[in-house]
Amino acid sequence: MTAIELAQRRTLVADWFRSLQDDICKALETEDGKGKFKEDRWERPGGGGGHTRVLTNGNVIEKGGVNFSAVYGKPPESSVIHAGLDPEKVQEFFATGVSIVIHPYSPLVPIIHMNVRYFDLGPDKWWVGGGIDLTPHYVKPDDARFFHETLKSVCDRFNSEFYPSFKKWADDYFFITHRDETRGIGGIFFDYLSENEKFTFDDRFQFVQGVGSSFAGIYVELMRRNKALPFSPEQKHWQLVRRGRYVEFNLVYDRGTKFGLESHGRTESILMSLPPTADWIYDHHPAVGTPEAETLSWLRKEIDWTSPQLS
Amino acid sequence: MTAIELAQRRTLVADWFRSLQDDICKALETEDGKGKFKEDRWERPGGGGGHTRVLTNGNVIEKGGVNFSAVYGKPPESSVIHAGLDPEKVQEFFATGVSIVIHPYSPLVPIIHMNVRYFDLGPDKWWVGGGIDLTPHYVKPDDARFFHETLKSVCDRFNSEFYPSFKKWADDYFFITHRDETRGIGGIFFDYLSENEKFTFDDRFQFVQGVGSSFAGIYVELMRRNKALPFSPEQKHWQLVRRGRYVEFNLVYDRGTKFGLESHGRTESILMSLPPTADWIYDHHPAVGTPEAETLSWLRKEIDWTSPQLS
Repeated sequence: MTAIELAQRRTLVADWFRSLQDDICKALETEDGKGKFKEDRWERPGGGGGHTRVLTNGNVIEKGGVNFSAVYGKPPESSVIHAGLDPEKVQEFFATGVSIVIHPYSPLVPIIHMNVRYFDLGPDKWWVGGGIDLTPHYVKPDDARFFHETLKSVCDRFNSEFYPSFKKWADDYFFITHRDETRGIGGIFFDYLSENEKFTFDDRFQFVQGVGSSFAGIYVELMRRNKALPFSPEQKHWQLVRRGRYVEFNLVYDRGTKFGLESHGRTESILMSLPPTADWIYDHHPAVGTPEAETLSWLRKEIDWTSPQLS
Repeated sequence: MTAIELAQRRTLVADWFRSLQDDICKALETEDGKGKFKEDRWERPGGGGGHTRVLTNGNVIEKGGVNFSAVYGKPPESSVIHAGLDPEKVQEFFATGVSIVIHPYSPLVPIIHMNVRYFDLGPDKWWVGGGIDLTPHYVKPDDARFFHETLKSVCDRFNSEFYPSFKKWADDYFFITHRDETRGIGGIFFDYLSENEKFTFDDRFQFVQGVGSSFAGIYVELMRRNKALPFSPEQKHWQLVRRGRYVEFNLVYDRGTKFGLESHGRTESILMSLPPTADWIYDHHPAVGTPEAETLSWLRKEIDWTSPQLS
């Protein structure tokens, strides 16, 4: 690939992610009916920057971030080593993507997270990564099936091995080891997808576009189904405890968060993923037979959410 | 040292820590006036266990933990390597100590943390570590001076180099790099203190006893000074934001927390340090000239809190 072709590719990808951010913000604002995203544009000292958009105190969304960034410069050494390249020869990295976390006001609407990204270390090495996963405060098998079936249909448009493989990857990644529970009901997660004998750059980028484009429809549907349901103060309290677990995952395990903080990324953009309020109750266990206990029983790996028997 | 002498030392140290836990719990309950500690006794699968004591919803203390543990078994490889010993030759480790975090209800009463601990890898290698540090939601120079002067007087009873050296260690340790701010006003922190040409085991253990014994007097005084002061909902809100920073430090940086979670310690005892409720507001900055902004201006290293000019 020539330098011009590489520059064209970077522009193409970043432009598409920026338009994805616009589309998702519009769809979320419409379904929310009240909240508006506010944008902060920031620059990275080493090169590039981002557009962080945060919506707070909507009708449905209590705090949500939809972030776009496109950064470049001296590559992080860990990435160069991971790619098996000679650090002496890699002049520059380029990374662009969209990251989303939405914390709804109602405990009956799930938390959702998406990340889609492109990374290169110059013309010789590039990959895409990302995923979508869902963290319901109360697991509802119908919603879980809708979520996973939609992701499966997106994956199946490209390759029938994608969904089972990326679903397992999400189960393993979104796991809170010290709680012995998954963060939520998983979804799909993938990383380091590059070109090989089966897939070209266009294949990979179209897959990322497919995943990114599915987000708004999925979350608008989950908002629509659940946003008007009444809930109790006890259910709200349970939501705050579950949000505490979300904080634990993000600060203890999440690679993007850790990498961002260690590499002196923009802290406020990285930590927009944290909930507006979270609770920690010592040794909290819901009573046997409650909906809260039932939710905990679903927070494990290897559940086939697309199985008709679950609903 | 013979095996019998080692066993006697372990018993002596653990018994003293257990009595320290009792004394501190009694003093805190008395000053609180309402809350009572509830104890959970737990066993560690690999050997030993602990007594976790948690007080919630007191008059002054919203959530506080005073934990004792004494554990032993196959040593963590990282400790053996740190000690420069041959992993083949180290049969067993023994660790005992007391860990405390108190989250008060009032934003005008500071959060306090203490840890005092003894660790050995058999008869050939042992050390003590610990510290006390204070995290006021509103920094008050008078309270800060009382806190640091008391710690200095404890240290000075043993060696005049301890306070300056361990105060700097606390400044460097309790630092939230991604926020470019200290967790609070520091205190003292020390680790890997063992015997050498200047200090015997008795010297080291007496120092740890001096630090541990100072805790109750220090925090009871800080509760007494501040517990009856009226506060506003806005001050309570600021407290929740500062508690969010406390969560960030504990989950991202604290070595004890990370080691505990990675080594499959008892999660509920480790995470009792997290506050009952915490908030995260995107890009929150107090207005110039407010008490909140003044507090932020104090959250940096290398302040000499014992200087009369501060008050």
